[in-house]
Amino acid sequence: MLLPELKQRRDKIRVLMAQQGIDAALITCNVNLIYTYGRVVSGYLYLPLNAPAHLFVKRPNNIEGEHIHPIGKPEQLLDLLKEFQLPLPSTLMLEGDELPYTEYIRLAACFPDVSLVNGTPLIRQARSTKTPLEIELFRRSGIAHAKAYEQIPAVYSPGMTDRQLSIEIERLMRLEGCLGIFRIFGRSMEIFMGSLLAGDNAVAPSPYDFALGGEGADPSIPVGANGTVLETGQSFMVDMGGNFYGYMGDMSRVFSIGKLSEKAYAAHQTCLEVQDEIAEKTKPGVVCEELYNTALNVVTKAGFVDYFMGVGQKAKFIGHGIGLEINEMPVLAPRMKQELEPGMVFALEPKIVLPGVGPLGVENSWVVTADGVEKLTICKEEIIEL
Amino acid sequence: MLLPELKQRRDKIRVLMAQQGIDAALITCNVNLIYTYGRVVSGYLYLPLNAPAHLFVKRPNNIEGEHIHPIGKPEQLLDLLKEFQLPLPSTLMLEGDELPYTEYIRLAACFPDVSLVNGTPLIRQARSTKTPLEIELFRRSGIAHAKAYEQIPAVYSPGMTDRQLSIEIERLMRLEGCLGIFRIFGRSMEIFMGSLLAGDNAVAPSPYDFALGGEGADPSIPVGANGTVLETGQSFMVDMGGNFYGYMGDMSRVFSIGKLSEKAYAAHQTCLEVQDEIAEKTKPGVVCEELYNTALNVVTKAGFVDYFMGVGQKAKFIGHGIGLEINEMPVLAPRMKQELEPGMVFALEPKIVLPGVGPLGVENSWVVTADGVEKLTICKEEIIEL
Repeated sequence: MLLPELKQRRDKIRVLMAQQGIDAALITCNVNLIYTYGRVVSGYLYLPLNAPAHLFVKRPNNIEGEHIHPIGKPEQLLDLLKEFQLPLPSTLMLEGDELPYTEYIRLAACFPDVSLVNGTPLIRQARSTKTPLEIELFRRSGIAHAKAYEQIPAVYSPGMTDRQLSIEIERLMRLEGCLGIFRIFGRSMEIFMGSLLAGDNAVAPSPYDFALGGEGADPSIPVGANGTVLETGQSFMVDMGGNFYGYMGDMSRVFSIGKLSEKAYAAHQTCLEVQDEIAEKTKPGVVCEELYNTALNVVTKAGFVDYFMGVGQKAKFIGHGIGLEINEMPVLAPRMKQELEPGMVFALEPKIVLPGVGPLGVENSWVVTADGVEKLTICKEEIIEL
Repeated sequence: MLLPELKQRRDKIRVLMAQQGIDAALITCNVNLIYTYGRVVSGYLYLPLNAPAHLFVKRPNNIEGEHIHPIGKPEQLLDLLKEFQLPLPSTLMLEGDELPYTEYIRLAACFPDVSLVNGTPLIRQARSTKTPLEIELFRRSGIAHAKAYEQIPAVYSPGMTDRQLSIEIERLMRLEGCLGIFRIFGRSMEIFMGSLLAGDNAVAPSPYDFALGGEGADPSIPVGANGTVLETGQSFMVDMGGNFYGYMGDMSRVFSIGKLSEKAYAAHQTCLEVQDEIAEKTKPGVVCEELYNTALNVVTKAGFVDYFMGVGQKAKFIGHGIGLEINEMPVLAPRMKQELEPGMVFALEPKIVLPGVGPLGVENSWVVTADGVEKLTICKEEIIEL
């Protein structure tokens, strides 16, 4: 990745560090290394407030360049900083929400006279507004994502299970360039590539705060397709993670086997109205919870509030930031007072589940522009009949 | 999962707890919940030394049963333990190598007068010897894994890239029941399903301690296939993770496009000899490093030591425990004094990389029996010519 891009990203972090009295960051978790160094390595990026960043790398052993030095273990860090005459921190930030406890403690012990702070929220804040290059990668990702979805009717055949069709869609995604890895912030959530939820399996609650869960194929990963045969009169939703260039674009589309009930089409239309109304309102300065309330008003008026964002176990948001991880800032949820800023990229996912039918609704990725929003995932949004 | 199985697993943990003066465990990380409760939930399993375990569950909201209680946040734990008259710990173990720093600190604050210890190494020790059911799941996993690999020649076509063929193999694995998720202990390593390494891409070092790395398709996941066209006279190795029932079976096989050099066949044969000699020696009581040294002797005698386990950046092991994660205990590596025990399941992967040709060798999953070993992944081990 080009240095000006990396410098821009590092400076976004530095601005927040200066505001919070932090004079250096030690970055070692994969997504934050991708963000600040442009690739995954096993090693440490030392990012001082007022001096160039240096990378201390364990593996791979073939990375060389200015400000790049080999390292064996973190206990060498302090000596290496002195050797290369880097400014030593009085307040250092570590990735406290991401590093395992014992690794954090080990790193902390490498900086005995230094005040340590949890830098994860700060880095997530910096990452929440994307650079023009990141937005362009999301645009390209959206095009590839749509290209994969457009081929779904061609890989469907009658009598398939949700799992069989999901496997064919995973293949389409991979052939269009999807990297496969599905990155999620936090240790708890796990999902493989995304989900295909058909019929009443979309009602099954998952261990996670997902709009729709699904029982899954095995108790070791109880989410998503469960072997349901795709049957006439039912709908299914395809919700695969993008990750074409490291960026987790998010897009859901609904398909039906034959015709659905009138109520199902009305529910779907309601979700499209939610999307339209929110897209209309979204611009810099708008408060996240307002958009959530907008959605709730539309679905309440339409009579679908009991089926909105799940039944039984409901998701408590209608949208979420996306980036190198699927769950970034901001979150469009109740009580979220955060204001939208230009460059924020988020997924908006108004979804309804009708027992006996299946999931309805839509999900797209959007970027906040100077005066509104731009849709990043452009692909037919009506229910696609198979 | 049946309670006797879960009780057996919990008791394996309790035996070690008693030895180390620990009187309760709080388990909340996914793999450890699968191990002790049989499935992933969002919640906490409280496991006292001398009383039945209780599950406190946030999501999904449809789990009910004896000793299962809803919970909203960890700050309720102490009150709930009192309410259900559970023994309060004086020494409690948390998953210190797995919990993020801030989550560990938050949980620690919920038990203000309790002495806390890192329980991860203990749970990993308990998990390192498998129960008969776990071994049976590995056997079934091995059969499914082999069935997928046997179909590889049928999905190959000339002119394919490593990535294109990898996508077809991923699909075969999924159709045979692979759950897709590739679980790895530690925050650092990431891989999607496994790898296909062709020609000189097998020489490229990765950020990880893998025998063979590969450049990968994108700097955000720099490991595995890189778009190399599969060419006559070159070899490629398929090394996909199993995970058919939550268990990460491990198996690698080598294919060639046309004939390879004589040296390549000799290298492959050397790896098979390493495997034979180690299988011959392996039984309870054997020390891990002895097996590593055995491997090194064979390849040194055969003249391949410079190409063994990578060139440039070498892996420092020839085998590793497998289970719910791909990198469990024990590790067959230098200085590992641990003795093998019945029920330990490990992958043995003698691999050689010849620049200009590609990877050679073999990888199988094995279980230590009462007096030897049993191979769990049975599938042709010669180089398969395409």
